[in-house]
Amino acid sequence: MPTLYNRIQGRNLDRLAALSDGIFAFAMTLLVLDLRLPSAAQVHGERELLAALAALGPQWITYAMSFLTLGIFWAGQQTQLNHLAEGTRDLTWIHLGFLFAVTVLPLSTRLLAEFITYRAALGIYWLNILVLGTMLYWSWMYAARNRLIKADTPEEVSHSICRRILIAQAWYAGGAALCFIHPWISIAAIVLVQLNYVLAPRLWWKKPRL
Amino acid sequence: MPTLYNRIQGRNLDRLAALSDGIFAFAMTLLVLDLRLPSAAQVHGERELLAALAALGPQWITYAMSFLTLGIFWAGQQTQLNHLAEGTRDLTWIHLGFLFAVTVLPLSTRLLAEFITYRAALGIYWLNILVLGTMLYWSWMYAARNRLIKADTPEEVSHSICRRILIAQAWYAGGAALCFIHPWISIAAIVLVQLNYVLAPRLWWKKPRL
Amino acid sequence: MPTLYNRIQGRNLDRLAALSDGIFAFAMTLLVLDLRLPSAAQVHGERELLAALAALGPQWITYAMSFLTLGIFWAGQQTQLNHLAEGTRDLTWIHLGFLFAVTVLPLSTRLLAEFITYRAALGIYWLNILVLGTMLYWSWMYAARNRLIKADTPEEVSHSICRRILIAQAWYAGGAALCFIHPWISIAAIVLVQLNYVLAPRLWWKKPRL
Amino acid sequence: MPTLYNRIQGRNLDRLAALSDGIFAFAMTLLVLDLRLPSAAQVHGERELLAALAALGPQWITYAMSFLTLGIFWAGQQTQLNHLAEGTRDLTWIHLGFLFAVTVLPLSTRLLAEFITYRAALGIYWLNILVLGTMLYWSWMYAARNRLIKADTPEEVSHSICRRILIAQAWYAGGAALCFIHPWISIAAIVLVQLNYVLAPRLWWKKPRL
Repeated sequence: MPTLYNRIQGRNLDRLAALSDGIFAFAMTLLVLDLRLPSAAQVHGERELLAALAALGPQWITYAMSFLTLGIFWAGQQTQLNHLAEGTRDLTWIHLGFLFAVTVLPLSTRLLAEFITYRAALGIYWLNILVLGTMLYWSWMYAARNRLIKADTPEEVSHSICRRILIAQAWYAGGAALCFIHPWISIAAIVLVQLNYVLAPRLWWKKPRL
Repeated sequence: MPTLYNRIQGRNLDRLAALSDGIFAFAMTLLVLDLRLPSAAQVHGERELLAALAALGPQWITYAMSFLTLGIFWAGQQTQLNHLAEGTRDLTWIHLGFLFAVTVLPLSTRLLAEFITYRAALGIYWLNILVLGTMLYWSWMYAARNRLIKADTPEEVSHSICRRILIAQAWYAGGAALCFIHPWISIAAIVLVQLNYVLAPRLWWKKPRL
Repeated sequence: MPTLYNRIQGRNLDRLAALSDGIFAFAMTLLVLDLRLPSAAQVHGERELLAALAALGPQWITYAMSFLTLGIFWAGQQTQLNHLAEGTRDLTWIHLGFLFAVTVLPLSTRLLAEFITYRAALGIYWLNILVLGTMLYWSWMYAARNRLIKADTPEEVSHSICRRILIAQAWYAGGAALCFIHPWISIAAIVLVQLNYVLAPRLWWKKPRL
Repeated sequence: MPTLYNRIQGRNLDRLAALSDGIFAFAMTLLVLDLRLPSAAQVHGERELLAALAALGPQWITYAMSFLTLGIFWAGQQTQLNHLAEGTRDLTWIHLGFLFAVTVLPLSTRLLAEFITYRAALGIYWLNILVLGTMLYWSWMYAARNRLIKADTPEEVSHSICRRILIAQAWYAGGAALCFIHPWISIAAIVLVQLNYVLAPRLWWKKPRL
């Protein structure tokens, strides 16, 4: 009897997509809630205000980095779901695990902003990215094994989705390892990896016309 | 005249699903807002940071438990709505009652995290789960009585949805009753019941290919 | 040229519905954020915890009342949008005005919970409900005048939507006026009006089978 | 291989719309969270409550202004997406940049409410509006260059979308420049520009029947 129930559960990919969009939207907006602005009592004059805002620099960097992280994984999950024909109960739970890691990211970000010179904070942030990547990889492996992928998806697409995750995670791991030199170098490396995925392809070849 | 108005109200199940996804997404992300991180002023060195994070353990357990709870009931509501052909005004209000209990869950979680050794806090948390289950059961009973279920839904699906809720609630009630021994045992039992619904089927039989 | 731009704007009712669902979902979940729980330092023993929770009673009543308000207006807006064939720029802005009043409701609720014996707080809360009703009424009048209503909508549906809003607002105004006797009587009256719209029809006639 | 991956990414405009609706809905609701209400301990009597609420006036103006800003840009983005046939990876990132600016707006608003007489606060708020307009303009230019616009979109629609953004941004820049006379004049000018886009067309010609 649970077999039957489990068979009818989680087949609606549209609702999984809607829940994901809601969680990503909230996590992205939540990041900004943690930025502490100077209060009017502490500031006297235009210059002091600009100086107080400039002092928030490290907070802004971690915030922008986390927005990039969420954007990259949102786009990655979307690409996967676009190629799936239907869902199953297990796939739903793999994605709920993925979404759990998404809801934790604002917390890892806050930790990193508070302890930006601590290797432990950076390690936890990287762990969060690792879990996001692992769940997405698992999701695609599971979908491939259970024939949930749309029939018209070429084999190379499937390969490129897997390779993309593995290569990105290798870069992130390398960037995180640099924290043994200094956490700032590590953060700079992770942001560079992210900007590569967001912008760099423009520099090397012409965008394909779709 | 209200008869007519009531007849035209609440027929759009898509919007009910969208509202539900929004509320679940928000409640899931909200849980993490209550986790209090150590502040930089209190912590001196990498080890102290890890120790301070480890001390948040009980908070994490209630947080993860509530994420599981929300995930289980989100999947359960989704399964029901997938099998309904259309909505009515009354069905809408049953689900709004269900969603009310969803919005209360972050509060019950916060209460449980703050008073984790109090039977009253655990009792309220269990009551919250009970209301969630009751509303879902009521929703299905109502839909069956008013012929809102899709014509192609086999009888056994209807039975399995009801039985699933009753069995799960029996397990939760049993787990909650263990708080008379000790609240921690009770929490462990509830988490085990949840993990059973999330993971356990993998252990006993091969997943059906859909 | 703005004529052309204004003509192509705001035609997508699906996105208006999605934005509305998001705002209602957040506003409903936000209400609970304002409930202040007792802290562990103040409470010693199970009984004190229950007593502290019972002391939150007035907060809970305003919270539940606001959830009912949001549920009623969400259902009302949904019913309207279901009967519209397409949107216009002006209709979009009428609904954005409606959504503005929705985002203000958590604030009115907080004000009422803090100043539950003040007529001014109750007056502002009622004003909020009045604006919600006015915008919905305006939206339907506008849609009727500009032939945005679906062709298959019978005349009586249109009448029942208008009459429903007017009668409900008359009840709310009457309830709010009772605050000149005592704010608590007024709150009780408003909750009764709301419960009438949520539950009462069950008492007087059999629900129509749809 | 990244070429292939980039080609399959970001084609789902529905999910981009859903993420946008979630972020706009949250940002709109978030604004109200920052309004600080008087507490019961400070207020004695109905009149003091009304006086305390009236003292919140400047907060309300910045709040209402930001809701208008978000409403205008939500409607603008919707109009664009309605005319696009499909998305690409790059278009997705242009819109994620736009959404980043949306999540920052509640923060700019809070800054402006706290430092309402500072030119620097007003300058940052205007910068935020400028980024929103720039991303939307870039998005349309990109879509036109890459033939993503629906085939049935007349040339004049494309022109009116571009001109609309440029003229609005010119008005905003002019309004912001008035802060060198006084920030209040500048805020009044920006609100007037916004109200023009929300309401004014009604005054000059009859609304087109769609």
